[in-house]
Amino acid sequence: MVTVEVKVSLKPKALDPEGETVRKALKRLGYDEVKDVRTAKIYRIELDVEDERKALEIADEMCRRLLANPVVEDYEIRVVEG
Amino acid sequence: MVTVEVKVSLKPKALDPEGETVRKALKRLGYDEVKDVRTAKIYRIELDVEDERKALEIADEMCRRLLANPVVEDYEIRVVEG
Repeated sequence: MVTVEVKVSLKPKALDPEGETVRKALKRLGYDEVKDVRTAKIYRIELDVEDERKALEIADEMCRRLLANPVVEDYEIRVVEG
Repeated sequence: MVTVEVKVSLKPKALDPEGETVRKALKRLGYDEVKDVRTAKIYRIELDVEDERKALEIADEMCRRLLANPVVEDYEIRVVEG
């Protein structure tokens, strides 16, 4: 069993309305130090495969097919449990 | 300027309907290796403060006041840019 963590984030130039909403909410709470907030999504996926290379290969394919939208999102994959 | 990354995830015993939906979607695409999917949220926050300790202190307070729900969620904070 191998656990991978996939992080899907918006490309730097894409607008992030959720991040913007959180930034404003933090400002309203008095956090004037906050200059920018960007959000991202994590998928922690447990895979029934023997080796890490296979897990990374499958996770990469899953990102391209389902988890990330290549037009506006970037993704990173890392093994968290071997 | 210090950038912190806050990761808010559901506690292990909390149900994760979004993760469950993704797990089923991956199964339907033929990924029978997928045993479990859990989701989490990342907030990447740029803070106009001089030192990392101050940034971590503020981020921790922001988590308790706004970003995380302590009943069902855990959070982790790390400095990504000093």
